[in-house]
Amino acid sequence: MLDLASDAARLTAALVDVESVSGDEARLADLVEAALRRYPQLAVERDGDAVLARTALARDRRVVLAGHLDTVPVAGNLPSRRDGDTLWGCGTSDMKSGVAVMLRVAHLVGSGALDPGVDLTWVCYECEEIEAARNGLGRLARTRPAELAGDLAILLEPTGAVVEGGCQGTLRVVVRLAGIRAHSARSWLGQNAIHAAAPVLARLASYDARTVDVDGLTYREGLNAVGISGGVAGNVVPDECAVTVNYRFAPDRSEADALAHVRDVFAGFDVELTDSAPAARPGLDTPIAGEFVAAVGGAPRAKLGWTDVARFGGLGVPALNFGPGDPNLAHKADEHVSVDAVLAAEESLVRFLSA
Amino acid sequence: MLDLASDAARLTAALVDVESVSGDEARLADLVEAALRRYPQLAVERDGDAVLARTALARDRRVVLAGHLDTVPVAGNLPSRRDGDTLWGCGTSDMKSGVAVMLRVAHLVGSGALDPGVDLTWVCYECEEIEAARNGLGRLARTRPAELAGDLAILLEPTGAVVEGGCQGTLRVVVRLAGIRAHSARSWLGQNAIHAAAPVLARLASYDARTVDVDGLTYREGLNAVGISGGVAGNVVPDECAVTVNYRFAPDRSEADALAHVRDVFAGFDVELTDSAPAARPGLDTPIAGEFVAAVGGAPRAKLGWTDVARFGGLGVPALNFGPGDPNLAHKADEHVSVDAVLAAEESLVRFLSA
Repeated sequence: MLDLASDAARLTAALVDVESVSGDEARLADLVEAALRRYPQLAVERDGDAVLARTALARDRRVVLAGHLDTVPVAGNLPSRRDGDTLWGCGTSDMKSGVAVMLRVAHLVGSGALDPGVDLTWVCYECEEIEAARNGLGRLARTRPAELAGDLAILLEPTGAVVEGGCQGTLRVVVRLAGIRAHSARSWLGQNAIHAAAPVLARLASYDARTVDVDGLTYREGLNAVGISGGVAGNVVPDECAVTVNYRFAPDRSEADALAHVRDVFAGFDVELTDSAPAARPGLDTPIAGEFVAAVGGAPRAKLGWTDVARFGGLGVPALNFGPGDPNLAHKADEHVSVDAVLAAEESLVRFLSA
Repeated sequence: MLDLASDAARLTAALVDVESVSGDEARLADLVEAALRRYPQLAVERDGDAVLARTALARDRRVVLAGHLDTVPVAGNLPSRRDGDTLWGCGTSDMKSGVAVMLRVAHLVGSGALDPGVDLTWVCYECEEIEAARNGLGRLARTRPAELAGDLAILLEPTGAVVEGGCQGTLRVVVRLAGIRAHSARSWLGQNAIHAAAPVLARLASYDARTVDVDGLTYREGLNAVGISGGVAGNVVPDECAVTVNYRFAPDRSEADALAHVRDVFAGFDVELTDSAPAARPGLDTPIAGEFVAAVGGAPRAKLGWTDVARFGGLGVPALNFGPGDPNLAHKADEHVSVDAVLAAEESLVRFLSA
């Protein structure tokens, strides 16, 4: 039984202690669903291992709070352990502390302690840490997009309690080089596919990545080889070499623009797209986002990475990242979160909602 | 029972029909040993699955005839099949036809039909087609080098019955590039090891391989990447990349010279030697080699590849390659040899020995 009335730090510990590695979130989803169903003010639905809840307060605007229930594999770091201001354990930072803050708000609204100025939707979902095809938020965006509609979405991913707007897009291509196989003792009879990759790597090495201002936030891009392979045997001139390249692009480019740019960089080479996800604009220029930034304080920055905010972007919902954890601790064995940061994030969110 | 009195083509078929994939040569070695022991003129010894035989005719000069007994794995091409002038089957070309020619000469000398102008040593050995450490000739060179001594060694490897002098040397190095790992969304925090390979591949792509005249034969060199690997994950700037490079060098360079040259080509990079085998000079400038070339006819050419002649070179014995098979058919399922070529190779060798 999850007690949403306990403070956000204790609630974080309780969530952390229900192991929920990707694909194995059912028990935690059951507990979250049961906890939310105790508040008659909230309309709760279950979809796979995603749990949705919404208010119907007839407000002018709606804010979506979203967070994933899954963690990366446990690394000897369960159950949680508290040491003064620090809570240690798998998922403390990414992102059960964020989920705890969301659920605390549900308790405050559901119990009548908080009368929010906006309608609210909660989305807790599964399988964020693994292949995109299994992502619960992705499924909801495809199958019931109306449930995710709103004027602002707040993804409670770890950001160190700073507003991180939008996200980079990401795409991967494979640049394939072909050659002619031959015995390396008679290499002039062949054509070396690995040697043919020289200009591909040279273009990458000399690539000047953009730094772009989008709606007041600064996005840095990056174009990187993340893999290379070639070779048949120690005495064979190889006829194949493949360079896998990852492009992280700013939200002023669509996926199509980004691919066109990559094809341009590798003009003259065989470029195959293998993976693509759009960027999201920060959307901080809307009044409601401005109110959130004001309530939270601090200078917003660009999200340098890809997050599920892009899915909201795809639905036309401005989305930002804001959560108590430290993104640099995500996926580490020594993952932890500051208890003060969890309580402060709840306070900020409540301040915004009370306004 | 092997009948060395039968003609070289039939003897080839008989040798082919005793399967002797590398590591499994004992039965064939037994048969060869027993056949040679029937000639009292020959002193026969067994060493592992190598068989040695020698004459003691007190001639001024000694010629070593050498050939390996093993084949690559059978590929549905046993037993042998004769079709007019063509004998099909595993080992027909590489190199049981060569072994048959050696053994025919042993019969002619042992039976008194041929009175050679030189003393002769025969070496049939195992495990040439697999890792060098198991090579029977290599073992003999280490453990009983005196038995391999001579004024000329003839390796009856397939050369299309053309004298192929000496052999290229071969060495492999790994050029390692280091970087700093980082999330590819924040690539400026890292340093890409694959990008760092750009100048390595550029040097390879623009490398101008030498063509060298050594003792009248033309050796072409080659410097080739035969493998490349790098990459940690699709979203990680890699901290490691490794390029495996194979250098085939002419016999005017020692192994040390060759390595120094490769280090020079990759100056500034981390170069690790992983494998090295010396080249062999053709040694065709000795009178006895000149006599052999005259008896055989045709214009000698350089051996472009590495063969066991290099082991004789290491012992100070000039060595050349000369055998009836076609090197381009070696290791193929449709391996075959021309019966005429086998008989002609025997004739050439007998002509030389009778002179």
